[in-house]
Amino acid sequence: MKSLTRYLTMNVPARMEFVNISPQVEQAVRESGVREGLCLVNAMHITASVFINDDEPGLHQDYKAWLEQLAPFDPSPDRYRHNRTGEDNADAHHKRQVMGREVVVAITNGRLDLGPWETIFYGEFDGRRPKRVLVKIIGE
Amino acid sequence: MKSLTRYLTMNVPARMEFVNISPQVEQAVRESGVREGLCLVNAMHITASVFINDDEPGLHQDYKAWLEQLAPFDPSPDRYRHNRTGEDNADAHHKRQVMGREVVVAITNGRLDLGPWETIFYGEFDGRRPKRVLVKIIGE
Amino acid sequence: MKSLTRYLTMNVPARMEFVNISPQVEQAVRESGVREGLCLVNAMHITASVFINDDEPGLHQDYKAWLEQLAPFDPSPDRYRHNRTGEDNADAHHKRQVMGREVVVAITNGRLDLGPWETIFYGEFDGRRPKRVLVKIIGE
Repeated sequence: MKSLTRYLTMNVPARMEFVNISPQVEQAVRESGVREGLCLVNAMHITASVFINDDEPGLHQDYKAWLEQLAPFDPSPDRYRHNRTGEDNADAHHKRQVMGREVVVAITNGRLDLGPWETIFYGEFDGRRPKRVLVKIIGE
Repeated sequence: MKSLTRYLTMNVPARMEFVNISPQVEQAVRESGVREGLCLVNAMHITASVFINDDEPGLHQDYKAWLEQLAPFDPSPDRYRHNRTGEDNADAHHKRQVMGREVVVAITNGRLDLGPWETIFYGEFDGRRPKRVLVKIIGE
Repeated sequence: MKSLTRYLTMNVPARMEFVNISPQVEQAVRESGVREGLCLVNAMHITASVFINDDEPGLHQDYKAWLEQLAPFDPSPDRYRHNRTGEDNADAHHKRQVMGREVVVAITNGRLDLGPWETIFYGEFDGRRPKRVLVKIIGE
């Protein structure tokens, strides 16, 4: 069994933004030499997501508006108890649950086995500081 | 390490529907010969889900009503910017995020290690054309 | 390839509660002897979740209030068709979809490769009876 571990560092200047990380993940797969296996990609922070969807800016704006509606940003300690700890990012912990922590992608014939429109995104919900994404590949 | 890759083609005539795919996944596990391992099942399209829940028609109706409330179908370009591209399926991209892209199931003693009520479903949110599901099995 | 299968039994006296299961999962990883691999942790019941987020009681109260808003408990058969079957837990099936069924965590150098604040939780949405969590480890 082969394995590869890679940590990507994300620096997102906005509070909420989505970043296409498919090229970095595909690169890690190539370096791993794995032909058949699984590739886990996960946020290592709990106010961020890794998810797969369409690389279409209009959809990303829709997601942002929708997530803001489901879990509005509100730094006050009134709406969210979490913000009584001195944090202002309770909303980000909620948004991340909707979008998910991780994806697992098949590796087939040495490549990520993605559908035609599948793109891997890092989803930031409390940016403006460096955060890490883990890529773990196992297989043969 | 053994591995098996299988693509299922789904033809769902309705816009939104849930289809039990546990038998096809179980069959792939048998063919793989894997006794201990992991089985990834994911939608290869970004307006569809694979998820695990109860095989109960009333619950499925509840899910449909609830998803319609969380992200209503609306082909106009007013509610969803994604629909300014000529698409009418922005709602489907949202519904899929709530229900998830994939499941990873343990294989133990050559079988899917599912709880008593766990059933694997394909969730279609923009049907009426063929779409694919990927089953990837690795183990020994 | 090495593998380990462990079933944890959860007894949660409340209807909705979150339980930190990171120590039990870390213990399973140690026992497996796996240095590089993947660890799947999933609820075996369809009214429960396994998810990763912050071990902060205020946030957990926020999650409970938010999930109650997204999918309110209502045992009547009026709101949820699922409750026409004699069940009263349709809301729990919805809450579980928001929080997810499973997490997959990398194992690196013999340890769960978690970010500094990542904690693995069992999420119970229809408690007061024993339920199981599956831990499946594969690697080398």
